Amino acid sequence: MWILHRVPGRPRLPVLPGDNKRAGSASVLYNSSRMSVGPKILNVKTLAQSRLFRIEQVGLRFANGVEADYERLQASASGAVLIVPMLDAETVLLVREYAVGVERYELGFAKGRIEPGEDALTAANRELMEEVGYAARRLSQVSVLTAAPGYFGHLTHVILAEDLYPQRRVGDEPEPIEVVPWKLNDISALLAREDFTEARSIAALFIVRERLAYGG
Amino acid sequence: MWILHRVPGRPRLPVLPGDNKRAGSASVLYNSSRMSVGPKILNVKTLAQSRLFRIEQVGLRFANGVEADYERLQASASGAVLIVPMLDAETVLLVREYAVGVERYELGFAKGRIEPGEDALTAANRELMEEVGYAARRLSQVSVLTAAPGYFGHLTHVILAEDLYPQRRVGDEPEPIEVVPWKLNDISALLAREDFTEARSIAALFIVRERLAYGG
Repeated sequence: MWILHRVPGRPRLPVLPGDNKRAGSASVLYNSSRMSVGPKILNVKTLAQSRLFRIEQVGLRFANGVEADYERLQASASGAVLIVPMLDAETVLLVREYAVGVERYELGFAKGRIEPGEDALTAANRELMEEVGYAARRLSQVSVLTAAPGYFGHLTHVILAEDLYPQRRVGDEPEPIEVVPWKLNDISALLAREDFTEARSIAALFIVRERLAYGG
Repeated sequence: MWILHRVPGRPRLPVLPGDNKRAGSASVLYNSSRMSVGPKILNVKTLAQSRLFRIEQVGLRFANGVEADYERLQASASGAVLIVPMLDAETVLLVREYAVGVERYELGFAKGRIEPGEDALTAANRELMEEVGYAARRLSQVSVLTAAPGYFGHLTHVILAEDLYPQRRVGDEPEPIEVVPWKLNDISALLAREDFTEARSIAALFIVRERLAYGG
């Protein structure tokens, strides 16, 4: 029997031996035992370090004896939050900010670093006040996302913020942030925009819609 | 009137002046004109460079006169592909690979760099043969994703691969990759797993399901 736990945060489901049976046309056996016999980390070397990023080289030996060097990035150890604020039961609040990585304004959910001494929910409410101008009476973690786990150890906690009230707090933003309300039933128009491209925001939007639809 | 173009690739929709009207409770005006008056890039300096990554410092002057330095990462200029292979109308093929960024095996869609001389569809079919053991008679680009546009210029082209046939090509993987078929109607069980966390894979999964549901 398959029981889906609905608890705050990413539910911890064991990898069950029968997993592959759930996909009807499984032609390749899903060998779940390998999760515990990952490659051995032979060494970790810092190649470069800046204010925000550290580039590391990691030497690995796989179970079959193959050895290889990989590069990965480390950012702040505490991770980040992404906030999905519900203005009402059908409307999320997006923000539009300049994104220097792609050199244009980008639409997405408010995000920010978890500061020392904060937990994810506290960080989410602070960022919500700083970037969106609201605070939330109800905050819950609905997912933890990675951005590119083959290269990047960074974790993003997705926080659903409900029961909002106006509350502004001054952040370190270089210019005022535009807040853009969007209806959950109009996702296809949002996906069609060329300034709504961030995988974490898209994933969070669908995860929250799924959760609300099923009464999460 | 709002026309949603359904063409391969991310449809280029203009930002319409009436955009904000579509969100019923819009309390903040969506000033679309700012897209064209972004901050001025004053200087770009390479702080560090490794085999895969370049850390840059970018000096910006915003429209309000505020100046600030930002750090960003550049990776391969040509970008990457993420492939959503349809084994049949209801089943996608995932792969399970060791991800050194998070130091565990991670479930997700096959991905790879676009090599010099390749376009996104060619790269997608090559990676499909190398990582999944199939080739596709039909390939179409359904989206272009960013991973963290505030810090990272990297683009990921999401390619839907249909009409598959078995075809193996040897890649540079250090160990055989497990292929895991998954039913599209069982997304909630997939989202509940702790080894399916990558925002690009989650976003691609929902985008493809949305597209197929509406007859893409």
